[in-house]
Amino acid sequence: MKDIVIESAEIVAIGTELLIGQTLNTNSYYLANQLTLLGISSYHQSVVGDNPDRIINTIRAALKRADLVITSGGLGPTADDLTMELVAKAADKELVMDRASKQRISDYFTSIGRTVSDNNWKQAMKPEGALVMPNTNGTAPGAILVFEYEGATKAIVCFPGPPSELRPMFELSLKPWLEERVAYQFEHRFLHMMGIGESSAELELQDLIKSQTNPTIAPYASPGEVCFRITQRIKRNQAEPDLISPVVKEIKKRLGQYIYEDGERTLPEIVLQLLQAKQQTVGFAESCTAGMISSEFGNLPGVSDVFKGSIISYSNQIKRNVLGVSSKILENQGAVSRECAEAMARGARKTLLTDLAISVTGIAGPSGGTKDKPVGLVYLGADYQGQITTEKHLIRGNRERVRTVASLRAFHLAWRCLKEKSDA
Amino acid sequence: MKDIVIESAEIVAIGTELLIGQTLNTNSYYLANQLTLLGISSYHQSVVGDNPDRIINTIRAALKRADLVITSGGLGPTADDLTMELVAKAADKELVMDRASKQRISDYFTSIGRTVSDNNWKQAMKPEGALVMPNTNGTAPGAILVFEYEGATKAIVCFPGPPSELRPMFELSLKPWLEERVAYQFEHRFLHMMGIGESSAELELQDLIKSQTNPTIAPYASPGEVCFRITQRIKRNQAEPDLISPVVKEIKKRLGQYIYEDGERTLPEIVLQLLQAKQQTVGFAESCTAGMISSEFGNLPGVSDVFKGSIISYSNQIKRNVLGVSSKILENQGAVSRECAEAMARGARKTLLTDLAISVTGIAGPSGGTKDKPVGLVYLGADYQGQITTEKHLIRGNRERVRTVASLRAFHLAWRCLKEKSDA
Repeated sequence: MKDIVIESAEIVAIGTELLIGQTLNTNSYYLANQLTLLGISSYHQSVVGDNPDRIINTIRAALKRADLVITSGGLGPTADDLTMELVAKAADKELVMDRASKQRISDYFTSIGRTVSDNNWKQAMKPEGALVMPNTNGTAPGAILVFEYEGATKAIVCFPGPPSELRPMFELSLKPWLEERVAYQFEHRFLHMMGIGESSAELELQDLIKSQTNPTIAPYASPGEVCFRITQRIKRNQAEPDLISPVVKEIKKRLGQYIYEDGERTLPEIVLQLLQAKQQTVGFAESCTAGMISSEFGNLPGVSDVFKGSIISYSNQIKRNVLGVSSKILENQGAVSRECAEAMARGARKTLLTDLAISVTGIAGPSGGTKDKPVGLVYLGADYQGQITTEKHLIRGNRERVRTVASLRAFHLAWRCLKEKSDA
Repeated sequence: MKDIVIESAEIVAIGTELLIGQTLNTNSYYLANQLTLLGISSYHQSVVGDNPDRIINTIRAALKRADLVITSGGLGPTADDLTMELVAKAADKELVMDRASKQRISDYFTSIGRTVSDNNWKQAMKPEGALVMPNTNGTAPGAILVFEYEGATKAIVCFPGPPSELRPMFELSLKPWLEERVAYQFEHRFLHMMGIGESSAELELQDLIKSQTNPTIAPYASPGEVCFRITQRIKRNQAEPDLISPVVKEIKKRLGQYIYEDGERTLPEIVLQLLQAKQQTVGFAESCTAGMISSEFGNLPGVSDVFKGSIISYSNQIKRNVLGVSSKILENQGAVSRECAEAMARGARKTLLTDLAISVTGIAGPSGGTKDKPVGLVYLGADYQGQITTEKHLIRGNRERVRTVASLRAFHLAWRCLKEKSDA
């Protein structure tokens, strides 16, 4: 296969469900973000339905404008899954059976105890000469095809539509392939902050943001926190001086108190690693977040060493019976109060037998708010080896946002508990 | 202004933040869904950055293909906000000052106690002949322009980028305008299934899918379930026979045992409504899902009437101490076993004092799997007023997918428990 240098890419999302607004196009968002991190420019994105002519025309138009065209969707076993066939046609290639893919499909169906139906074999087809990207989470493999198109070398990459299949396939197969073919490499560093608003943080860094061209400093969107990305452009395979570190040092001088991560770890990952390092355990008592904190923590591989479990105390009965919150607190101060948050944290630590217990109680809305206790009022509590911390937050937004931001704040509280004791 | 009949539309989202993956394109999703509900077809969507040539080219290409082009973004006061100017250019119209918009901008700034800066007046400009759509949540008004383009009557609509401004503007201004100009309306119905694969389901319906043109039948896969959409096209303001019901009846005859919803409710919503109707309560005992089920259920407004709480028993200690799973089961059959799932469900119902308790225990991976108990092995248990059900699943995919599908299966089990007793 002829080699290629990739400076520009265009994303083509395929699927009628996107055109009729049934599915939110998170694939293009994810891919665009990944391309940006790799330093590949993108000037155009498209969405087309499951229609042969329109898919072909869109792919051809994209090939005229960009070095690389990335499609998502249309690799399923059904009759309206046409992508592989049409990509072959656009590139003027035959569609051929890939033996390894055929074997994997056969293995997959054996492993789930079902027989392969005829239309499943369709998923083993690829354009002649294409590299196959294996699918670790489904049956449809992806493909990378490099070919000559109107006198230039171009590439088309096909991904399956489900994000749970596309994302690992990008990480495992396309990303390393692209890293060998980009003209420039981009070195990124991320500074994550909590406790300061984005516009205030930007004001503090205004002069740096305006004067820097390499590295650049840009705010990076992330719900409930503030993040800045510092990016240095480097010619591929060339040793260049580290221009990022001096900028990071200056930002830390100005905003250090808000920074909880210089890197790419999320707050739950940082909390997990601190617990692992200290060989300590954690548990949660969740009311309005109703399992969101536990679920996010539980999604991290390796968490079972330090995560004992949680009590989701949606009703007062469970706050009383399982967590031991006194009826007096529930009657006098109410379930959404500093006192209740404290009692929940104490009760969770006692019941779950952990070093650290974090509690959350609040009003997620849309109903349940009063003048004194409005929607968005959230109390957090921590019991870290007997040392109690509580705090009050007022979070704006709908039910989902209140719960999401409350979860983030809970991890932030856990981090501060663990960190302060580490520093001491 | 000449009148127009609108059968097709194309959405063009404008903004570099979309191309670099900094902002998720929820506007196109929202607009596509609204267009579908109005019976307007959409065959293509685009995203372009803040670049004059590319914006003009994209708008012109869209005008060739559709009756209506809807843009979002690029109506702000800064130098890279170019949409209104470029739409005027594409339609060959002058850009003129709109007096009412000018007044509203002046009023807005007075109301927040600021003076209007020069670049804000830019937001009062519109293509000559355009209808203005007032902005109830910001300064940038939108515009509707009908004009002749290459021998046909076309329309361009411009919306501001922030969803909080675009959505009310659509509801208040564009929707009523479109309702007077559509040729057809679409009636949709969704059938949701579980327990059958997409390709097997499609095979069962192959003859129907191929022979139907009105209504159409289209599969739509979302993780862990199968969904078919049945769509009938109806002429505006015309009474037409219901062509959907006979098709639905036929599908139910063939696949009825797998269908859990004829409508748009999700499984957790169905479970919530069944519980509300029966005035019964639920709780969960989660091990490998670690709160995902509780969190999803807890995200539904109004859940507090029926949702008491959950025990996240990640460690065996909590399975024993809080849920009362015997040491014998944990030692002999292990935490991932039918026996443990049953004991967890019994224990959860006893501790949480609910009518129904659902338990999940499994191996989410990536580590922890053995030959006998591989990654993806999940046992579910239900205790519904003393009646016990357990089941075994083998779920393929990464940690996140195993947990997501296990959660969906747990809601499916809850639904079957509640439904069977209802039917009885």
